[in-house]
Amino acid sequence: MAGIVYVNGQYLRSHDARVHIEDRGYQFADGIYEVCLVIDGRYWDAEGHLDRMDRSLRELQISPPMSRNSLGAVMAELLTRNRLKNALVYIQVTRGVAPRNHLFPAPETPAALVMTARRFDLDASDERARVGVSVITQPDIRWGRVDIKSVSLLPNVLAKQAAFEAGAAEALLVKDGKITEGSSSNAWIVDQSGAIITHPKGEDILGGITRETAIACARDLQIKIEERPFTVEEAMQAKEAFITAATVLVMPVVAIDGRQIGDGAPGPIAGRLREAYKDRARLA
Amino acid sequence: MAGIVYVNGQYLRSHDARVHIEDRGYQFADGIYEVCLVIDGRYWDAEGHLDRMDRSLRELQISPPMSRNSLGAVMAELLTRNRLKNALVYIQVTRGVAPRNHLFPAPETPAALVMTARRFDLDASDERARVGVSVITQPDIRWGRVDIKSVSLLPNVLAKQAAFEAGAAEALLVKDGKITEGSSSNAWIVDQSGAIITHPKGEDILGGITRETAIACARDLQIKIEERPFTVEEAMQAKEAFITAATVLVMPVVAIDGRQIGDGAPGPIAGRLREAYKDRARLA
Repeated sequence: MAGIVYVNGQYLRSHDARVHIEDRGYQFADGIYEVCLVIDGRYWDAEGHLDRMDRSLRELQISPPMSRNSLGAVMAELLTRNRLKNALVYIQVTRGVAPRNHLFPAPETPAALVMTARRFDLDASDERARVGVSVITQPDIRWGRVDIKSVSLLPNVLAKQAAFEAGAAEALLVKDGKITEGSSSNAWIVDQSGAIITHPKGEDILGGITRETAIACARDLQIKIEERPFTVEEAMQAKEAFITAATVLVMPVVAIDGRQIGDGAPGPIAGRLREAYKDRARLA
Repeated sequence: MAGIVYVNGQYLRSHDARVHIEDRGYQFADGIYEVCLVIDGRYWDAEGHLDRMDRSLRELQISPPMSRNSLGAVMAELLTRNRLKNALVYIQVTRGVAPRNHLFPAPETPAALVMTARRFDLDASDERARVGVSVITQPDIRWGRVDIKSVSLLPNVLAKQAAFEAGAAEALLVKDGKITEGSSSNAWIVDQSGAIITHPKGEDILGGITRETAIACARDLQIKIEERPFTVEEAMQAKEAFITAATVLVMPVVAIDGRQIGDGAPGPIAGRLREAYKDRARLA
């Protein structure tokens, strides 16, 4: 990682960006994060990400490290200092530094805040979307509160690595025969009637910000949407499949577990949604 | 935390003990840990802890940061530098530092190693054991591979905090009506026949090192042992209950969810096991 990062009140060269070994993020995965997309110098869906961050912090009873205005100032400063126009901005907040003990530290312990920005290549992403990606399925063995965007990501890491080793780009997680979501994305299919299906919000999935915007786009396009769990078999039989996340926008899926979806090429509905998403984000 | 700690090849004052923000332990909970007890300058069950550490690393495909001999040398050096005779030594290994990406970094990326030592007060622990502790039950919402001693401890933190807020010392975790283990301990009961019952090893519990030694002690004492899941109701009706961990040795439980266990005082079997455990560890 090159450039300048923000760590607990200081802008530092990446090389010097360190946290204490007793930061609870390091010893207990006791923290949360967000990844925000910036295109042409403007944050996409930033309010949605910061709202979700507030919710994650509230659920874990971690005090916000600073006001939203101050956060916005740091986010802007990071882009300036790194001279980035298209970027992914990573924000991590943990319960701070305290002598190791499972219990929450004293209430006056300040939360820790780390922020980084790295270049995002929208053209490369568009290029990839023209080809689509392959995915595999993996058992969803995550904890019971994946609606909180915590840094407790070890099962996601293992699923993503399994996908990579199978020559795929993402792992769709399967719980009780249903696809909940991807290891770092939400999962969608298009059924034979042309309706879009995606898992409903709840404790089984992370309420994706890009997911919400994609739903709004689909409504604008008058595409029918069903928020319900769907099976692996339904996904295999789907006309189209795609995943969404701030890091991939709307990305067509052309194969699941080596089986071609639809005609094996990115589908028209995923393509229309991706364009609608980009238009909407640009105008927001 | 006072004293001297070991961080990636250096002995540092605690204040200066830092890791990079892109250490995968911080961003992905992609690491493991062990806590070893030292009494009178001697490690108790150290080989068991280091064997389990090797297993955790193997399961996660993280390369050991150094040989066992070298680990032992650092462990000894920490005690010397901190002038500790009775201590808890904390060892954490993560998949190292790499640009943020769910995928495993390049294979040549060295694992990160952090080690700390802090004073352990055996007399205070004995004192506590004479009174016993209260516990509560909490839903077991952890991920599906808790047999790996990973730093993915957020659900454990939340359960332990819930216990504290209820005036209890530990939370016993309940899955499908059965008590799996505590948030940082193994859970045991003694039934009306005098047999000891504890959850069997497998993916539902962490194979505790103190648990293994306690089982060996119980065998020596010719106490019957059943390794099988038990219900909350069985625990409520038990003659005795106790928990085990390197940090508490064998600790009697006198109440669960506010309900007295047995006659509400530490039971004789827990007491005998605690003494046998201490004798065995001293002689090992």
